[in-house]
Amino acid sequence: MSSDTADAEDLQNADLESTPELEQLYADFAAHHLAPLWTQASEVLTFHPRSDAVPFVWRWDDLYPLAARSGELVPVGRGGERRAIALANPGLGGAPYATPTIWAAIQYLGPRETAPEHRHAQNAFRFVVEGEGVWTVVNGDPVAMRRGDFLLTPGWNFHGHHNDTDAPMAWIDGLDVPLSDHIDIGFFEYGTERVTDEASPDISRSERLWAYPGLRPLSGLDERVSSPIAAYRWEYTDRAVAEQLKLEDEGHPATVEQGHAAIRYVNPTTGGDVMPTLRAEFHRLREGTKTQVRHEVGSSVWQVFDGTGVFVIDGVRHAMRRGDLAVVPSWVPWSIEAESPFDLFRFNDGPVIERLGFARTHIVDPEK
Amino acid sequence: MSSDTADAEDLQNADLESTPELEQLYADFAAHHLAPLWTQASEVLTFHPRSDAVPFVWRWDDLYPLAARSGELVPVGRGGERRAIALANPGLGGAPYATPTIWAAIQYLGPRETAPEHRHAQNAFRFVVEGEGVWTVVNGDPVAMRRGDFLLTPGWNFHGHHNDTDAPMAWIDGLDVPLSDHIDIGFFEYGTERVTDEASPDISRSERLWAYPGLRPLSGLDERVSSPIAAYRWEYTDRAVAEQLKLEDEGHPATVEQGHAAIRYVNPTTGGDVMPTLRAEFHRLREGTKTQVRHEVGSSVWQVFDGTGVFVIDGVRHAMRRGDLAVVPSWVPWSIEAESPFDLFRFNDGPVIERLGFARTHIVDPEK
Amino acid sequence: MSSDTADAEDLQNADLESTPELEQLYADFAAHHLAPLWTQASEVLTFHPRSDAVPFVWRWDDLYPLAARSGELVPVGRGGERRAIALANPGLGGAPYATPTIWAAIQYLGPRETAPEHRHAQNAFRFVVEGEGVWTVVNGDPVAMRRGDFLLTPGWNFHGHHNDTDAPMAWIDGLDVPLSDHIDIGFFEYGTERVTDEASPDISRSERLWAYPGLRPLSGLDERVSSPIAAYRWEYTDRAVAEQLKLEDEGHPATVEQGHAAIRYVNPTTGGDVMPTLRAEFHRLREGTKTQVRHEVGSSVWQVFDGTGVFVIDGVRHAMRRGDLAVVPSWVPWSIEAESPFDLFRFNDGPVIERLGFARTHIVDPEK
Amino acid sequence: MSSDTADAEDLQNADLESTPELEQLYADFAAHHLAPLWTQASEVLTFHPRSDAVPFVWRWDDLYPLAARSGELVPVGRGGERRAIALANPGLGGAPYATPTIWAAIQYLGPRETAPEHRHAQNAFRFVVEGEGVWTVVNGDPVAMRRGDFLLTPGWNFHGHHNDTDAPMAWIDGLDVPLSDHIDIGFFEYGTERVTDEASPDISRSERLWAYPGLRPLSGLDERVSSPIAAYRWEYTDRAVAEQLKLEDEGHPATVEQGHAAIRYVNPTTGGDVMPTLRAEFHRLREGTKTQVRHEVGSSVWQVFDGTGVFVIDGVRHAMRRGDLAVVPSWVPWSIEAESPFDLFRFNDGPVIERLGFARTHIVDPEK
Repeated sequence: MSSDTADAEDLQNADLESTPELEQLYADFAAHHLAPLWTQASEVLTFHPRSDAVPFVWRWDDLYPLAARSGELVPVGRGGERRAIALANPGLGGAPYATPTIWAAIQYLGPRETAPEHRHAQNAFRFVVEGEGVWTVVNGDPVAMRRGDFLLTPGWNFHGHHNDTDAPMAWIDGLDVPLSDHIDIGFFEYGTERVTDEASPDISRSERLWAYPGLRPLSGLDERVSSPIAAYRWEYTDRAVAEQLKLEDEGHPATVEQGHAAIRYVNPTTGGDVMPTLRAEFHRLREGTKTQVRHEVGSSVWQVFDGTGVFVIDGVRHAMRRGDLAVVPSWVPWSIEAESPFDLFRFNDGPVIERLGFARTHIVDPEK
Repeated sequence: MSSDTADAEDLQNADLESTPELEQLYADFAAHHLAPLWTQASEVLTFHPRSDAVPFVWRWDDLYPLAARSGELVPVGRGGERRAIALANPGLGGAPYATPTIWAAIQYLGPRETAPEHRHAQNAFRFVVEGEGVWTVVNGDPVAMRRGDFLLTPGWNFHGHHNDTDAPMAWIDGLDVPLSDHIDIGFFEYGTERVTDEASPDISRSERLWAYPGLRPLSGLDERVSSPIAAYRWEYTDRAVAEQLKLEDEGHPATVEQGHAAIRYVNPTTGGDVMPTLRAEFHRLREGTKTQVRHEVGSSVWQVFDGTGVFVIDGVRHAMRRGDLAVVPSWVPWSIEAESPFDLFRFNDGPVIERLGFARTHIVDPEK
Repeated sequence: MSSDTADAEDLQNADLESTPELEQLYADFAAHHLAPLWTQASEVLTFHPRSDAVPFVWRWDDLYPLAARSGELVPVGRGGERRAIALANPGLGGAPYATPTIWAAIQYLGPRETAPEHRHAQNAFRFVVEGEGVWTVVNGDPVAMRRGDFLLTPGWNFHGHHNDTDAPMAWIDGLDVPLSDHIDIGFFEYGTERVTDEASPDISRSERLWAYPGLRPLSGLDERVSSPIAAYRWEYTDRAVAEQLKLEDEGHPATVEQGHAAIRYVNPTTGGDVMPTLRAEFHRLREGTKTQVRHEVGSSVWQVFDGTGVFVIDGVRHAMRRGDLAVVPSWVPWSIEAESPFDLFRFNDGPVIERLGFARTHIVDPEK
Repeated sequence: MSSDTADAEDLQNADLESTPELEQLYADFAAHHLAPLWTQASEVLTFHPRSDAVPFVWRWDDLYPLAARSGELVPVGRGGERRAIALANPGLGGAPYATPTIWAAIQYLGPRETAPEHRHAQNAFRFVVEGEGVWTVVNGDPVAMRRGDFLLTPGWNFHGHHNDTDAPMAWIDGLDVPLSDHIDIGFFEYGTERVTDEASPDISRSERLWAYPGLRPLSGLDERVSSPIAAYRWEYTDRAVAEQLKLEDEGHPATVEQGHAAIRYVNPTTGGDVMPTLRAEFHRLREGTKTQVRHEVGSSVWQVFDGTGVFVIDGVRHAMRRGDLAVVPSWVPWSIEAESPFDLFRFNDGPVIERLGFARTHIVDPEK
């Protein structure tokens, strides 16, 4: 609900003349912890979604140096748990939330450091825009992190992070913390101080068992709430979007719109989203592509993986380059213009919106 | 997320000595709209759900007279839309929200009054603890409201209310407004000033088509997001819980626990909840029954339909009688003791919690 | 697959000149239990479904007296199990099968007789066109059988039948025996010689727990493969189709086509068919109604419940009245003309066809 | 249903003394196309599945030369459609059916030959035990066939086969023809005489769009009845089962049972079987592994892909090697003993059995 002052697009409240009787009624409401609809209909109901969250852009050139300074000043360990610095949407009153449903943070781990193991009901993922050398250990399975990889730690899985090199590494964390805090579902448990397996294999056991196209192990035929694949590797993501553009070149329908290739990361046991509350996608635009202008119910965070371009959010143009992050609140119109080949990672609360029956999309007709 | 001061059950924040460099870092975070996890881990993550919402009880003997006074002082009509007075949980900072996900209000309609038609993305229902004489018109279908009836107006259905009698009537509205405001999904449209059909049939067309045990019209074989039954009549609810207790008497397993019968209102096209975000149930306890003590993820509102008893919420005893409403926030332990035959209507955000994969229940072992 | 001789609508087989080498090849195929496609393509593949089963009509005036004679000559009991006389489709080589997937039989129980308890993997139901006085006992729950009732004994439920009166009673049994025999899924166990509960209540415990519109017991929230409702009572079926016609009279869309009301019996835990292999419906046509001409994949059996009319099956007109049964094989065109108000019970293999992805319907355009 | 003579395991039929009245009754039944249950209960119902199909083994050393002789004597083309030679189970009366639900054939295409395009409602796949050089063209998309590949042509997709080389090639076809013939669902349409695209790419467009671990194109978010992946390549299958055994070596649970790795081919849009009626799996046994003895509802066909071993079917030992095919009818006990590393392709009617609610498995306790 927006706290903006009323505008022509607001519902009307009842327009009542103040009388002593009415004032007494309102005082009695307050005394009994009651609130009338008619004085705040315009706050409670809106003609279309109007989020308190605002469109905003964070620059990698700001984020990374601040994370590096944290690396010098702030130890990582039990208490604090993670050296994570969250995007705090300016519209959300200082809360460490990128949107009303999504937590997004840069996490930084210095040489040889370990972030201790813990688990929580909230779902989490990592996306790596640069660097390598950290292993996320998920329920004892060490998962290498490298540029372009998308990594999962679904709710209630123990996980820690371990830097096996002499260089620092930073990446993006995404969680459903703002949603889960609002609906009060959080559970948390401490695990071990050190990760339970300090090995540094190229690929995780989860990938060795699960990461094949269209194949499932016969030892894992049950349906999983979240994807059993711990890491979605850049090699496949890159190839998938590249092939979509090649197929388009060859005259076949393969892309979302002309010059715009995209994949969704999915749970191979259902074909649906990787986790019940978070959706993740990777988009590749050809140089010169301008996407349609879309309104979507639900909020998104984008990170530029490579290239340069412009995000047009609610009519405002933002020049974006590698590592930059942009937030698009619910129903705010957005489009993207690629100045070079433009690679983008996106995550949002799409599964929440769809599972609760609230999904709507509106594509703006350029002719109007 | 609770804003309570930290206690022994909180996660620890990082305990860092203040230095000029650290203060500068924090200032730079703030300047860039960033927020570190390590200073607020205990706010963001909790060992178990700790809602800002608090357990609270509202008395029908307070609510109804206040609603009646509103009937004299506040006209109902376009602007304000409804003469609805919402339960405002004392823990939620004055917002008109019973819990972080649930809106609950008493709505009052005077003799011959009409609440104009509108529609919204939010899902709504009515439950009638006393009285009759109002017809809710849903997409042109007039639905009589009588004591014990549970009535639906799922998202994006036009609806208005029309009092066809010379007596006032009041009932309870339940909506998913707090959730939908938080996740920014609201749409709204005005409809007609008068209801589109002022007829006053005993049962609605939706019931004539859909309200039979285990029968579906061949003209309606598609799956519906929400139930097509506009009214769940008291006659059936009463019989269903009465039969459970009789079956128990005859030695058959039929009740939730000894002396505790209950039904869930469901969507006949799926067998699941009536709407994607709201669950509703009716419970009947025998005189003398004491339920187990339960913790549940998700928040509930109860209304006493008949009889007297005690709600024990977070260890506090509340004597309850007809029309009284009680809120149980997420994970707060509750149990009920019936001093007479005790009939209860309950609604909660169960479908949200389950569809997003967060459901947990803990039953307290009375031996411990 | 039809064994009809080839006609213009058949696929061509390869047209090869016989040579000694070819004959030797065919002999060698046979010796090795091999069969070439090219000599029997027209048998194995068809342009559209051409069932061996043929349209056929059985008369209640034939069936009932034969069943009654059986009642005098053939005891019911262990060995034989049931005094059931099956419709044997003339196209199916003498097998006791109404269609390739459906078993349909008249079952007859004399005064005070008992058909012993047993269970089998095959799914079964009963439909009562006339009479009363027998209780089917399903897992110990006695279920009264009366005219117009539709009763379930899903796979692997123990069941027996018990005539509590001094008059005989007959009804229709429907099972998936021909399908289950073909795909080899049958299991069988003997139960007790007498039914396990000889009480004769008006309604069964399953109905007392489950047969309410849109209500589920909280003690039964799991999804069931088959409906937990043991009996779908005539009172509700009658009212449901009557209301559809009244709603049509009032100008509302409620019927399948003009003058043609119908309900499907469903599993209240899913909204889908009552059992995984069998669909059941009840149709009511106004006097004078002529349905459209339909081709449907899958085979159906119809029984006239009341009134008179004409079934046009594959262009052949069959006058039908109370109790008469007609078989419509897969893809054979059918329509119905009501000479009086015409009430019809139908069952078919729709769930099999749909679950396996083979459903198609073609409605013949009367203009062509 | 087995036509075996009755044995101790059969249900009893009613044992009635013949009388003139009874004989007349039976004659009247026959005259009215009726059949009593009590004289054939033992045929219609069985204590456990007893298939007419029998366990049987076909040798690649027999099959391939016969297919090659067909290549010399029988042209491929319209009329006949395919040079396919079907396994005809000796228990099924000469029908070209491996089991009551499964068609399995060797198909042979000579140098530069084309099998014309057509489509049918029946689902089909190919599995390649040796050779390469043919492209199956599915809806215009050429799909290379190579040793170890599993290829799909789901129902109602146009497909033809085109040999692009100067060498012949043979492979295995699997279809649901016996099931679809029994339940009468077949449709068929001729397509073009030549395949619609004679290109010979390494991988198909379907793979370029779909064959990535856990990634879906955003242009294809709808759920598909059948898998959109046209070819499951040997490279991935081989790696998947190899990794399972390595994980087992490393002490992790990854295999079906000790020394027995296996994957199921799945539809990436659902995580379920590749087609609604057919399941396919690939199994790898270590040298020396002996599987447990299993009874399963539903019938299977196995083909040895590599290595040597023994199939024990219904207690009979069959030595098996590359290309050999074995049929296991429903509920017949089977186990496998690997004399070398043993690679096996398996297909069966598992989705049919499961979707219709009939699945059961019994593992024989070796201690008993």
